[in-house]
Formats: sequence, structure tokens, C-alpha cells
Amino acid sequence: MEPSVAKLKKAIQDRKTQAQKEYFHFLSIPSISSEKAYKKETLSAANWVKEQMHALQLQPEVWAGKGHPTLFGCDLSAGKDKPTLLIYNHYDVQPVDPLEEWSSDPFTPTIRKGEVYARGASDNKGQLFYVLEALKCVRKLCGTFPINIKWLVEGEEECGSATLSRQLKQHKKQLKADYLVIVDMGIPSLKRPAITLGVRGLTTCELELKCAHSDLHSGMVGGVVPNPLHILSRMLSQLHTPKGKVNIPGFYSGIIPLSKKEKQQLDLPFSNKEFQQKFGILPFGGEENLTGNERGWLRPTLEVNGMWGGYCGDGFKTVIPAKAHAKISCRLVPGQDPKKIQNLLQQKLRKITPKGCTLTFSSHTGLGAAVRISPHSPLVQSLAAAYRDVFSLPCRYILSGGSIPIAAELAQASHADIALIGLSLDDDGFHAPNEHFGLKRLDMGAL
Amino acid sequence: MEPSVAKLKKAIQDRKTQAQKEYFHFLSIPSISSEKAYKKETLSAANWVKEQMHALQLQPEVWAGKGHPTLFGCDLSAGKDKPTLLIYNHYDVQPVDPLEEWSSDPFTPTIRKGEVYARGASDNKGQLFYVLEALKCVRKLCGTFPINIKWLVEGEEECGSATLSRQLKQHKKQLKADYLVIVDMGIPSLKRPAITLGVRGLTTCELELKCAHSDLHSGMVGGVVPNPLHILSRMLSQLHTPKGKVNIPGFYSGIIPLSKKEKQQLDLPFSNKEFQQKFGILPFGGEENLTGNERGWLRPTLEVNGMWGGYCGDGFKTVIPAKAHAKISCRLVPGQDPKKIQNLLQQKLRKITPKGCTLTFSSHTGLGAAVRISPHSPLVQSLAAAYRDVFSLPCRYILSGGSIPIAAELAQASHADIALIGLSLDDDGFHAPNEHFGLKRLDMGAL
Repeated sequence: MEPSVAKLKKAIQDRKTQAQKEYFHFLSIPSISSEKAYKKETLSAANWVKEQMHALQLQPEVWAGKGHPTLFGCDLSAGKDKPTLLIYNHYDVQPVDPLEEWSSDPFTPTIRKGEVYARGASDNKGQLFYVLEALKCVRKLCGTFPINIKWLVEGEEECGSATLSRQLKQHKKQLKADYLVIVDMGIPSLKRPAITLGVRGLTTCELELKCAHSDLHSGMVGGVVPNPLHILSRMLSQLHTPKGKVNIPGFYSGIIPLSKKEKQQLDLPFSNKEFQQKFGILPFGGEENLTGNERGWLRPTLEVNGMWGGYCGDGFKTVIPAKAHAKISCRLVPGQDPKKIQNLLQQKLRKITPKGCTLTFSSHTGLGAAVRISPHSPLVQSLAAAYRDVFSLPCRYILSGGSIPIAAELAQASHADIALIGLSLDDDGFHAPNEHFGLKRLDMGAL
Repeated sequence: MEPSVAKLKKAIQDRKTQAQKEYFHFLSIPSISSEKAYKKETLSAANWVKEQMHALQLQPEVWAGKGHPTLFGCDLSAGKDKPTLLIYNHYDVQPVDPLEEWSSDPFTPTIRKGEVYARGASDNKGQLFYVLEALKCVRKLCGTFPINIKWLVEGEEECGSATLSRQLKQHKKQLKADYLVIVDMGIPSLKRPAITLGVRGLTTCELELKCAHSDLHSGMVGGVVPNPLHILSRMLSQLHTPKGKVNIPGFYSGIIPLSKKEKQQLDLPFSNKEFQQKFGILPFGGEENLTGNERGWLRPTLEVNGMWGGYCGDGFKTVIPAKAHAKISCRLVPGQDPKKIQNLLQQKLRKITPKGCTLTFSSHTGLGAAVRISPHSPLVQSLAAAYRDVFSLPCRYILSGGSIPIAAELAQASHADIALIGLSLDDDGFHAPNEHFGLKRLDMGAL
């Protein structure tokens, strides 16, 4: 039996105070999956999710692996003639540095002007939490679920989903579903609700450029020994053409462009002015002669996400460093193979490394292909109807420039029709200091 | 009365065990002047020097200032008809990172194969220590000093000598001397004793390039927003021409070149092979068509000593940083004005900063002009004779690529003939991990 929207609304309102308490507790757990120091805390977030699944009578399973565990719960009592919905969330969060830029402690949730500030408030603990609230309320109102529910919550989304990726094959049967919703996406604004019809793929690597045996004194060998910071700067500045294209042979080969019709279905308008107000800078990165949304949704990128070398502390040290480092990621579009792109990138960098210097790569596991979904799929259509109900506004279609590395693999393993939804907003500050999420959106999501 | 070399030798030998104990204690004090966290320890090193001066009956004075204090001691009992020698050392040391590359703790002196490993073992605590030993032994053997002695020991050489620089005017009278020896230099090898006839000047700055309000998610705005790491890489790679010259208009203007005769007096030969063995890299940095010593001694440089931005921790974070940072220093030669060069550098960088990004400089106080000394000065001649006595080898003349920012100012304030001496070796690792100094050199220096 499906509950009425009015009843559901009331149930969510009734739980509001208690729910916020639980949400804040969840946010207070620093489950930073990429940092070894937070292993215990990440496990503690997994346990919290397990307890919630248990309370929901979803018979939770903990899929332990080499990394952080995956949680899986299900209730199939709706029966074989009803469809099965697989829901995906993650309980891990991004690192918090630069910590000094947070206005309040990232793991002490703080409300300012109706927004909850905390790491994970939006990505993905906030979105996980309204899924949980919705399930709790339906369970309370109806006793059973109107459809078969499977809920998959992983702990490595922010560091490449390696554990879940390895587990997919083994748990293929359990994951089988008719529909898969990945609740890790956003909408352009509360006035423009939208479903995401695609994410970009991702490939990442870290490199070390080594010149001398050890750090040297710039007085002694300045102007004599090669400086790896100079060399790496030069190398990195060769990865883009002056017009902003990625300067790697073969990088754009095989890309499947959107047809004119497909483009028309998308909510492509982009305001440079709005962008500047939000982020403090005009959107002049990337390729020339394309709008912001075209560059952010339809084109692949190469970005240096971190770079360091030499003395970076207080004061000054006149050192010629022995090594320089960079972290590089590429966002990919349909038709680009993450492994192939990774190889092309490494080849290019090797080619432009001066003789006598050593370039070493350490690959990260953030490999994933791009995903694109038809707006005509029954799942997308029924979700669009639900968005219209909640927002009382037409539902638009967008793409995301982000990546859910596991999305393509999970769709394949579950044999399900996929949809990408969520209520995060561009300026929530996910992956950045002062991440926040609207309390109002918690209610809307649950609804 | 001057003691005989034989007597001095014996006195040094007699104190060996005790001296090593004292040296190790001095080395165990982490007097890192550039890091605020070590303020107390730096003061404790100053106090240690003061006690030593006291034991030497040099009537130490502590010149307190805004930064780390300067120590001054003197014994003028030789009388007005004897010359006055002003000796310069410093008690502060460089930072120790990357700490993980040290084989033993930088502040737990450890002997391996006759070399003492510790931060400051060479620069400048080792060199200060043999000056101290020499003074102690002469005092013990003769009761009085054969000439008037003034000893100046500062605590900010590694971070720009700002405090001492401010004190010079006020203490001009006390600093007046006939001869000034700065004991902070090196020799090419123990088989090639040499006196240093010049140091390069220095100017340093730190910059911040800011693009967006805060760090952003590369999925959301990758390829849309400008990436400050890309921009800074491109800017820094424009500071040198492809042939390794500094690419700043006016940078080389006014440089006073060495005459052919002056060049002939220098020990210019340079072995690429030896250099590679020492440092693990061929000396292909800097300008083309010059030998290593020509580039390191006679030519000015621009080096990036540190650069950072984005996520530099474990694992990966797909962030587009809001800011990127760099620390830059220039080594200067006679004819270049440090302030003028600093302005030219900042002008150039401002000129190539893209519109919409903000470039901010924070200047450091490491400003100092280059120094060059004639080999015919009486002080240099008498020191050369002493070198010949100790090493039983001819004394050569070299230049140093390093900088003693205070050297030119101190020579001016004291009205003294200056000489630059010392026994550090190129591979002592000063300013780098695993700094070390030979026990044998401690004895030779004292002698």
C-alpha cells in the first residue's frame, strides 16, 4: 500500500526534532575514507548506517573487503510481481583541509540561516539521510514497502569505490533490480528541480618528478642544478593549448557527441553573472567558445588538483627541492575509456620529462566511465512526476560534470535502469570548506 | 703573546672529549629561527652562546630586538696599537623538513663514519663551535688574546638577519674593527682549501594567486572555472627563457662582470662528473654555455623554492583550489640592487596574471647585496697563510653562490676589511636533510 503524500508529509514533520538529532550525530562522525588516520571513524559511520538499516528491518549485511565495508539491506516482501528498486548512497566524506577556512568545526554540525554546516552535510550524508527518513516514514505508516527495496551504502565513493567495485561480481544476484537510483546528485536551484541524465567519467593519478638525490641549497647550486618545480610547472603548462584544449594526442578521439535533439532536451542556459556571484570568478577556465554548461557537462577536462614541492612552511627556506609532486584528474565523457586516457596522459608526461629526471606515477583507483541516460526511460519519467509533486514546478533535465565512478559498473551489475537524483546545490560547498545543506531540503528529499 | 701551532694543537686535542659533548649539546637545541614554534628553543641557543662568551670572559651583551637576539662579546685588552678582529657567526639553523628523509633525528647528533649528523652540524653551529674552541684554547694557553677580539653571533641568518640589520646603526661604535671575518663559508674539498672572495646577494618573496572564493569541486566546475595551479605553472614557466636565462626585463642590467684577470685568480674548474656523483643529477640547470662554477658564482638566478596548492595529502581529492602559492628567491651578483630586482620580479608577475585573478605578495626580509673582495687585501693574505699552515697545501680563491645578506651591511657598519672563510663542504647537506660535519674539520677549524 502506498501512503498518501499528505500523510507522508505529516509523518516527516512529526519526526523533525528527533531526525535532526540523528542527522547531527551522523555528521559528527569524521568518516574521511581517503585518510588512513580516520579508519576507525569511517568504520563507526558504517556501523551507524548498519544500525539504521537494522531499525528499518532491512536485515543489513556488512560486505567487508580490503578497504571500508559496504552495507547492504533489503526488504523483498512486496513480492515478485512488484518492481525492485536499488538505492545507492555513500557514508564516507571528503577531507576537510584547508581547515582554517571553515567558520565552524567540520564535524560539529552548526545551523546558520536554515543551513546545516558540516563536512558531508550535503555530500552524501544529507542525501543518505532523507532516503533513510523516507524509508522510516513509509515503514511507520504502511508497515511494509509498496515495492521491493534494496539499499546499498558504500564507504569509498570519495576515494574511488575500489572495494565495492571488487564486490559487484560476487554479489551480482543480490544486486539484481529493475531500477537503480543513485542519490548523490544535485539540482540547479530550488526553483529549477531537475533529474541528472549523465555524469562524466574520471581517471586520476599522482606523479613525482625527481631530479637530485636530496634537497639542495639554492646558494650552492642555484642556477646550476635543475629545479623540479620549474620543470614540473613547464610540463603541466604543456598539458593545455593556449585555447584551453587538453594537449594530449588522442585525448578527444572517439567522443560520442550529443545530437542536436539531445542537446535541446537539456537545461543548457548558463549565466556567467550568476556563476561569478556564486564563486567569485568568471568562468573562463577550459575551452574557448563554449558556454559554461557545455564545458562542464559535455567536454572532458584535465585538472591539476594538487601540486607541491620545496619549502611550503612559515618564513623562507632557500632550497632547491629534489622532488616536485602533482595530483591530476581527468573528467571524461561518453566514448572515452578511463584506462586509455590514463595511459595517454602518462605517455605525454613521460615524453616531456627532461633527460636525467625521473618521473614516477602512483595510480589511484578513481577510474570510471561516463554515464548517459535517456529521458524517456520509465524510471526517469516516474521520478520526474515525483519531482513535480514535491516542487510544484516542471522537472528539467541536466547533466552533471561530476563523476560517480561506480555508476556505470553498478548499472551493469544490477541489470537495472539507472537514474541519477539528489538535492544538492552548486554552492553547498561539497568537497570544500563550509559544506552545508538546507534543512528544508532534508524534508523535501524525504518526501 | 701568540701561542705556537704545536701548543695550540695539543690544547685542542686535550679538550676533544669535553668539546664533543658541548658541541652535541649545542646541536641538540632546535634553534629554527624561521618557525614561530621554535622561539623558545632559539632563545635557549642564544643563552648557550652567551654562557660560552661569559666563560671566555668576553663580557657578553644581549642585543634584544623584535626578533631573535644578537650576542656580542669582546676583549679589547690587547690594546689600541693592536688590530681589532670582528668575527661573525650565527646560532640559528634551517627548518628540518622533509623530516622523513633524515636517517637520524636532526636534533639528536649522531656520528657515522667520522661525520656528525644533525641540523646545524655544519651551518653554522659547527663553524661557530671551532671558533669557540680556538678562542678557548688561546685564552687557556696565553691568558690574553694577541689581538683585540669582537665576536658577533646573530640568530636570524637563516631568515634574513632583520634584527641584526636594524641593530647595526645603533651599535656602530662597538662594531668598529680593522678586520671582519664571516665564518660561514665552505671549501671545495679538504684537498682544496680556499678563501671565498665573494657571495651572491639575495631577494625573496612569497606569492598567492587567488581565483575563486573557495576551493571548488572539479566535477562541478572542472573545465569551467580557471585553475590557479594551471595559471601559476604557466606564469612560473614564463620566468625563464628556453635557454635558461631569467626572463624579466632589466634583470641583468648593470651587472659588473669579472675581468679576465680576476677570473684567472679564481679556482673555476668544474667537473660535471663529480657534481653528478655528489648530487645525483647533471648540472643542467640555469643558463646554457657556461660552466657550473660560472653559473653558480658569477651569474644571478631566479629559483622557485616552494610551491603548493590544492590537495596535497594522502589519497585523492578532486578539488579545484581557490589559491596557489609559491616562494621565489633570486641570487644576485655585484651591480644588482636587491630592492630593484624584487620590484622587477613583482612587476613581471603582475603583468602575466590573468584578469579576474588576484596576485598578492608577502615580502620576506632576506634582502642583501652581493659582496666581492680583492685577493690582495692584507686580511685575505694573512688568512691564506694560515690555511697553508693548517692544510699544508696552497690556498685557492673561490666565490660562493650563497648569500650572507648581512655581509655587505656589516662590512659597512664596522668599517673593516672583510673576509669570508669556513670549512663546510658542498655535500654537508646544509639546508637539507642529513646535514653533517666532519669531526676532523672541527679540529682543523679551531687550529
